[in-house]
Amino acid sequence: MTTDQPKRTLLTDGRKHPRFAGISTFCRFPLIEAVNDAQQPIDWALYGIPYDGAVTYQPGARFGPRAIRDASQYIKPVHIQHNLNIAEVFSLADAGDAPVHPYSCKETLTAACGFALTLADPTHTKLLSIGGDHSTAYANINATWQRRGKPSGGLALLHFDAHFDTADVIWDEKWTHGSPFIRAIENGLIDPKRMLSIGIRGPLNSIDDFQFSKKFGNQIITYDQWRGGDGKDQIKQFLNRIGSDETYLTFDIDCIDPAFAPGTGTPCCGGFTSAEAFDLLRNCKGVNLVGADVVEVLPALDPTNTTALLASHVIFEILALAAAGK
Amino acid sequence: MTTDQPKRTLLTDGRKHPRFAGISTFCRFPLIEAVNDAQQPIDWALYGIPYDGAVTYQPGARFGPRAIRDASQYIKPVHIQHNLNIAEVFSLADAGDAPVHPYSCKETLTAACGFALTLADPTHTKLLSIGGDHSTAYANINATWQRRGKPSGGLALLHFDAHFDTADVIWDEKWTHGSPFIRAIENGLIDPKRMLSIGIRGPLNSIDDFQFSKKFGNQIITYDQWRGGDGKDQIKQFLNRIGSDETYLTFDIDCIDPAFAPGTGTPCCGGFTSAEAFDLLRNCKGVNLVGADVVEVLPALDPTNTTALLASHVIFEILALAAAGK
Amino acid sequence: MTTDQPKRTLLTDGRKHPRFAGISTFCRFPLIEAVNDAQQPIDWALYGIPYDGAVTYQPGARFGPRAIRDASQYIKPVHIQHNLNIAEVFSLADAGDAPVHPYSCKETLTAACGFALTLADPTHTKLLSIGGDHSTAYANINATWQRRGKPSGGLALLHFDAHFDTADVIWDEKWTHGSPFIRAIENGLIDPKRMLSIGIRGPLNSIDDFQFSKKFGNQIITYDQWRGGDGKDQIKQFLNRIGSDETYLTFDIDCIDPAFAPGTGTPCCGGFTSAEAFDLLRNCKGVNLVGADVVEVLPALDPTNTTALLASHVIFEILALAAAGK
Amino acid sequence: MTTDQPKRTLLTDGRKHPRFAGISTFCRFPLIEAVNDAQQPIDWALYGIPYDGAVTYQPGARFGPRAIRDASQYIKPVHIQHNLNIAEVFSLADAGDAPVHPYSCKETLTAACGFALTLADPTHTKLLSIGGDHSTAYANINATWQRRGKPSGGLALLHFDAHFDTADVIWDEKWTHGSPFIRAIENGLIDPKRMLSIGIRGPLNSIDDFQFSKKFGNQIITYDQWRGGDGKDQIKQFLNRIGSDETYLTFDIDCIDPAFAPGTGTPCCGGFTSAEAFDLLRNCKGVNLVGADVVEVLPALDPTNTTALLASHVIFEILALAAAGK
Amino acid sequence: MTTDQPKRTLLTDGRKHPRFAGISTFCRFPLIEAVNDAQQPIDWALYGIPYDGAVTYQPGARFGPRAIRDASQYIKPVHIQHNLNIAEVFSLADAGDAPVHPYSCKETLTAACGFALTLADPTHTKLLSIGGDHSTAYANINATWQRRGKPSGGLALLHFDAHFDTADVIWDEKWTHGSPFIRAIENGLIDPKRMLSIGIRGPLNSIDDFQFSKKFGNQIITYDQWRGGDGKDQIKQFLNRIGSDETYLTFDIDCIDPAFAPGTGTPCCGGFTSAEAFDLLRNCKGVNLVGADVVEVLPALDPTNTTALLASHVIFEILALAAAGK
Amino acid sequence: MTTDQPKRTLLTDGRKHPRFAGISTFCRFPLIEAVNDAQQPIDWALYGIPYDGAVTYQPGARFGPRAIRDASQYIKPVHIQHNLNIAEVFSLADAGDAPVHPYSCKETLTAACGFALTLADPTHTKLLSIGGDHSTAYANINATWQRRGKPSGGLALLHFDAHFDTADVIWDEKWTHGSPFIRAIENGLIDPKRMLSIGIRGPLNSIDDFQFSKKFGNQIITYDQWRGGDGKDQIKQFLNRIGSDETYLTFDIDCIDPAFAPGTGTPCCGGFTSAEAFDLLRNCKGVNLVGADVVEVLPALDPTNTTALLASHVIFEILALAAAGK
Repeated sequence: MTTDQPKRTLLTDGRKHPRFAGISTFCRFPLIEAVNDAQQPIDWALYGIPYDGAVTYQPGARFGPRAIRDASQYIKPVHIQHNLNIAEVFSLADAGDAPVHPYSCKETLTAACGFALTLADPTHTKLLSIGGDHSTAYANINATWQRRGKPSGGLALLHFDAHFDTADVIWDEKWTHGSPFIRAIENGLIDPKRMLSIGIRGPLNSIDDFQFSKKFGNQIITYDQWRGGDGKDQIKQFLNRIGSDETYLTFDIDCIDPAFAPGTGTPCCGGFTSAEAFDLLRNCKGVNLVGADVVEVLPALDPTNTTALLASHVIFEILALAAAGK
Repeated sequence: MTTDQPKRTLLTDGRKHPRFAGISTFCRFPLIEAVNDAQQPIDWALYGIPYDGAVTYQPGARFGPRAIRDASQYIKPVHIQHNLNIAEVFSLADAGDAPVHPYSCKETLTAACGFALTLADPTHTKLLSIGGDHSTAYANINATWQRRGKPSGGLALLHFDAHFDTADVIWDEKWTHGSPFIRAIENGLIDPKRMLSIGIRGPLNSIDDFQFSKKFGNQIITYDQWRGGDGKDQIKQFLNRIGSDETYLTFDIDCIDPAFAPGTGTPCCGGFTSAEAFDLLRNCKGVNLVGADVVEVLPALDPTNTTALLASHVIFEILALAAAGK
Repeated sequence: MTTDQPKRTLLTDGRKHPRFAGISTFCRFPLIEAVNDAQQPIDWALYGIPYDGAVTYQPGARFGPRAIRDASQYIKPVHIQHNLNIAEVFSLADAGDAPVHPYSCKETLTAACGFALTLADPTHTKLLSIGGDHSTAYANINATWQRRGKPSGGLALLHFDAHFDTADVIWDEKWTHGSPFIRAIENGLIDPKRMLSIGIRGPLNSIDDFQFSKKFGNQIITYDQWRGGDGKDQIKQFLNRIGSDETYLTFDIDCIDPAFAPGTGTPCCGGFTSAEAFDLLRNCKGVNLVGADVVEVLPALDPTNTTALLASHVIFEILALAAAGK
Repeated sequence: MTTDQPKRTLLTDGRKHPRFAGISTFCRFPLIEAVNDAQQPIDWALYGIPYDGAVTYQPGARFGPRAIRDASQYIKPVHIQHNLNIAEVFSLADAGDAPVHPYSCKETLTAACGFALTLADPTHTKLLSIGGDHSTAYANINATWQRRGKPSGGLALLHFDAHFDTADVIWDEKWTHGSPFIRAIENGLIDPKRMLSIGIRGPLNSIDDFQFSKKFGNQIITYDQWRGGDGKDQIKQFLNRIGSDETYLTFDIDCIDPAFAPGTGTPCCGGFTSAEAFDLLRNCKGVNLVGADVVEVLPALDPTNTTALLASHVIFEILALAAAGK
Repeated sequence: MTTDQPKRTLLTDGRKHPRFAGISTFCRFPLIEAVNDAQQPIDWALYGIPYDGAVTYQPGARFGPRAIRDASQYIKPVHIQHNLNIAEVFSLADAGDAPVHPYSCKETLTAACGFALTLADPTHTKLLSIGGDHSTAYANINATWQRRGKPSGGLALLHFDAHFDTADVIWDEKWTHGSPFIRAIENGLIDPKRMLSIGIRGPLNSIDDFQFSKKFGNQIITYDQWRGGDGKDQIKQFLNRIGSDETYLTFDIDCIDPAFAPGTGTPCCGGFTSAEAFDLLRNCKGVNLVGADVVEVLPALDPTNTTALLASHVIFEILALAAAGK
Repeated sequence: MTTDQPKRTLLTDGRKHPRFAGISTFCRFPLIEAVNDAQQPIDWALYGIPYDGAVTYQPGARFGPRAIRDASQYIKPVHIQHNLNIAEVFSLADAGDAPVHPYSCKETLTAACGFALTLADPTHTKLLSIGGDHSTAYANINATWQRRGKPSGGLALLHFDAHFDTADVIWDEKWTHGSPFIRAIENGLIDPKRMLSIGIRGPLNSIDDFQFSKKFGNQIITYDQWRGGDGKDQIKQFLNRIGSDETYLTFDIDCIDPAFAPGTGTPCCGGFTSAEAFDLLRNCKGVNLVGADVVEVLPALDPTNTTALLASHVIFEILALAAAGK
């Protein structure tokens, strides 16, 4: 237990200041300016990428960062299962939103990556970006890869999603929310041999959608394989295989069933429950996380804010996973 | 794998034409007029029966076909588990909505059955109707039975539902959404000995509600029996028993828990998850489907369209089940 | 089976009078005045405590009793699993709402307890209160304890909740929705050694939140322990330990996942499904229930009334559990 | 001012008992049983007719009485403009809901009228029914006409509506929500020469829709005529013409614009604001009201309860109008 | 009155076929294929442009055509004020949706214009496009201008909007939903001297926003000028000035107050009521309409479909205005 | 025109940085820390008081400041009618939220007033508080009065509201959302002779509710008087009477009709349209504003954020009114 550690994050105490009060920041973490003013290092910086121009169906995820900031006020810092307080393990900050170009995915990714590269201490601070649609993951993967010294083999990737997101071209465009990982692999940011996609399900456009993984060698666990019991062992083998390799985690909220996460743009029925998803994340204990994102929260389809709240819990699980892996 | 088969359905390609564009048809299948113009046979015709006058609680399912057409735009044709493309196995069409008489259940059933009897090739084309309340199932069962040559023993029935729907009379009326199967049995359309009701749950009006099955010999698997583990074997035995008998499948969306399907008129807490329901449907592989319906979607109680989307997935599963059984 | 028993509750028959008609009472039970007029004893009286001034996050549970009355119209009396008709086992009544003082938790608890003490036959009639926030449970526990003759050891407690609700002081206040059980233990109403909290989960403010249970000896089953399989045995041991002791059951709707119960003030992702919660309640068969409450339903966050409907089902399960234990 | 009058209605005082507490009755008026027990006469009895089987578009108004009971808790008794307290002028009661036959409009109207005829003192108590769809108005008009001694010339009628509701037959049916007034005129309950329809607007099926009024001589003020300034004089002339004749008032909530009343089944854009409608009702001061109804509130399309609240205000205005005319 | 004219449009009769049934087309007009098959000319073709990539705030108007098709089922053909039946005056058709390029405004405008140019008889058929965001208006203006023979002076323009939509560049982009009219003027499609913008209101980015109109000479009536009484005369003078010139009408639903039209991307409080907007449109009687659009309906922010219904009414008013001007 | 003035407020430019991006502050004004860091004076500081414990009906306004921050992102700085740019006239800042005590109105008012007294330059900076329920107005009135040097006659008051809010005691409590002004008058903060309440309407609890104004001499314009045409002159006379006296403006969003402002706790049908309310505010030009508040926005009843957006517009109008009066 970590209670004897000094408090690192300047977290607002909900027992003193109500959680419905104050300027909204992710999980009530301090604004990056305040942490800088306090001359404190930052272990993880969270920032939004409010861009949704690359979607193929329902837009609106540009409002994701704002909704998640509001919903995450209810998140507290102590993780029961990992038995730690993320605010004691890490110094955390909300770095605001990256600049975006609403009319160009590519320019948005360039601008957001540029912004991310400058945040806090590039060699120390890790980045968790909050979408936005899944195209934005590319920007944070790119920034993370660069900040880690551009490892030639690329990063390992834990990919939670209902969809492959490895389509080469959609509607004549190479930069879409269905394509971040093919681009990341092409550009050497991600190593497909150390990439695990988990939660894939639902009807497909064509049987060729599986071909990418065959060609590039990334590992896939469909939701149904996981339900059938094969998944846990596969995850363990994957974790064993990557060992302490630098790993990026990308979490598309639509890997969870629309009953739990209705507010998303391309929902697919028959997925993880929230509890199953948390289980999965906790089972990844030991992974060496060097960057992460949570994407595809669409507040206009989230009348009770359940999806944004769930995304907040996922952010908390990811930070706790990183803390547990230290 | 079926990729070498010629494309049979004139399906709009979502990678070329966005799924949010165009006149809404079920799953983007072509309108029946277009298929007829192309002089193509039709294996399965889908049509709506927008009638909800026979409900006992919350009305509004008359808007079900419209909502399901809109939500089903996101359905794609390839089924991973059955490893097939329904649009390659079947020629499919949206036949529009049956005529209804909003003030009379009996007249609606007559009109809808009459409409259904004329669709495409009566001896070849199979019918999937979309409600509307559960009373509408009777019309499609009747049309299916007639098109199959009025088999004297009736059809076998796979019945997914939270409720029995075998009430004799409700509020002095014999034609209600709680009575389609007692009427179908009385009239020889369904064989109660080869009828399986699965998902029954929730508080009952009286202990007599079980008597129907005792008297007529239909098999029942309550949701709790299924949860307890008894269900899978029972389903297997039922499937073995009916073998290749002509079977009709009726799917009341309220067999699924209201968290997943809030948009329904008589919701009952504590039911299947979507994933469990898909599992069940996939476990029926091998059944000889000759007709089906999906009923009781109530859009006014479905603010994020989750229920209509789920119904679209169920339709996809049913068509894939039929394809897998070919 | 209990069908030969005389009908005890003056229940409106849904097959005769539609469930969408009439003055709303809990589960269509008769108003207490009508039962009194009929000179019938009352086994269980249900009443609302429309107070939410003690919450720490989202208010609005003061409208819980009204919403649950409306949603519970669809509840029927026969419980399949326990094989009984609660309206035949028990004479049941809706006693209306307790007086509340919207600006003072303590005065509300005093007023509500005073109201509860006078209901029907204090030595015979058991009480089920419907919140309101969880602070209101104290009033009903207090009234139950007094009506049972102020047992010196206090009552045993079955506590379903995502949260401990044993905080000593929140925002300088000892009477909050996070504190009912510490107060009940301090005042001898509840015996912490015979208290079981089940469903605890989610991020905590501090690691000290577990200290209460360590100090007072109450038993805790986190949701994750339950998911891991430990829970069922623990529950059985607890039930064996308390035997036929007088037991109070408190049910915070937020023990169930927000996908199933979005309408609550402090939702926590990753909890019980409705079916799991019903299972748990049914597994408590044999417990000697002498009082109960269902709390924290917040209608303004419940656009499809799913949470209020679920709370109605929980009330039904609790009454059936009491009936099964007779 | 009427403050020296004795209090007649046993109204719950909102300053003592919060308006969010207690069994819901219309405007917190006492249940008819309580007034009878107090051996008090009843001047106006309010009752619901939860029937919507006669609609032509969106159903759900069967839940109107329940929603209006809940929303009307916020109505207080003093009317500023008429300078009176309706609870001092009148003894008022909520008589519950009439029996309905959900599958037959005609049987519902017979049952509801039969119920209405028996309420309180048939020669003294006036009736205000709350729908339900507009077909239900016929039942209350019929009961009112009979209770007033079956006046041979029929009653005068003040009709607020976006639609004529004088269609002879819709979908082969003579009893629909588009036909109550043609039936009432045919049966001598209403005198078409003393009938004023106000608020008519929107696209029509055919130009013949005006023919009814031409043939029967009822007076029509379209919404646009009223906006153009012609309306006020026409209303005055109508009121002068009917003088102290016994008059029935029927209020379809869809006469008000959907911005103010979204929760209705056949909404028509471009209608009265709430303030304009209240103005109109107040301008009818002096009319001798002997019965009234408020219909077509559809709660499933009323997410913020604004329509049900508005209907409560309309009920209050009607009762105040009746009081002002005494 | 036009009743002796032959019926021109193959309209489904709502008194025979319920308005909640059938494949959704705009106002239940026939699909263009059916009209072509019947070898009937088409006076006005309606089509959707489901594109929203050019917005500056809330996206989602890509689902506008679908929502308006569904909501417009309740529109009937007879216009009381203009005393005509649009389906008798005009042969009308739903031409489906234009192709769009979701990732490029410019390519979308090119594709949509190309599609529009081919519809029905280019020299006879007039076009009404349904957005989509306001950028889509450019495509239909362009197609209309070309079909009218590329008049060198451009078309006159009636522009209903809360915003100018004449921004030169937004976020480095010349093709946005804030820029359609500056582009149309630059390219000679619209004559700024014969352009009237009505309904402008709300806070501005800079005082320069008025400069466009000063420079180009288009006429502006702010909502407040209109409320102050100046507007009606200005409209009359504008109509007199343009006389029988070919005029295009563009209607941004946000010219109407968000109470009436919440479902829009850049709502601005304090605008027209629906009734005021209809009045304005009716006051334009006599204008020679050669094309029109209705844009910026955003269904995800329209929980009761009020905005889509209002847009349907506006379409009806525009067609009736065109009919009245014949 | 003020364009030659130097820009005073560090406003984010929406044409450069999208309005859906970045940490939410009121109207995108800078955080007070940033203005302080820039050593800039502050003319008006805006801050939230997230407290709703003093309500009498529907709670939830504690989330008002957060919702208004989010919705106000779309507000721009230039006011057309007053012909000025508020960001050029004033240096503006968001000072965050005041501390509150959720369980005590009185302690909240003390804490919030204490917080407000310390903001920026107490003798220069004026304060605009954002509720929270109407009780919070007292805190800002108190702070404003103290910062203005505790003028012995109190401040003048412009009061927009559907309700009097001068109840002495509600449910035994003197500090409620129905009582701020009686307390402010008792304590000499407000001069009742220079107090104007406008918009009063709706049913009252008792005829005595008018007595306060009779006794204390404050001026009242009911909504109906204003509609009748009397209001404008009365306002003018009031403004003439107070001249350049220091005036506080309190704006309860429920003075506007629930069609425009559904998200409020005690809605009252039949009130101002948004446009009428803006008109009123603009007609107060010349008033010497020294403080203001906007209260009673309840986000849980505001599904399309229309009410929060409207409140943002009202804040903008108030600041522009203050700027116009300089």
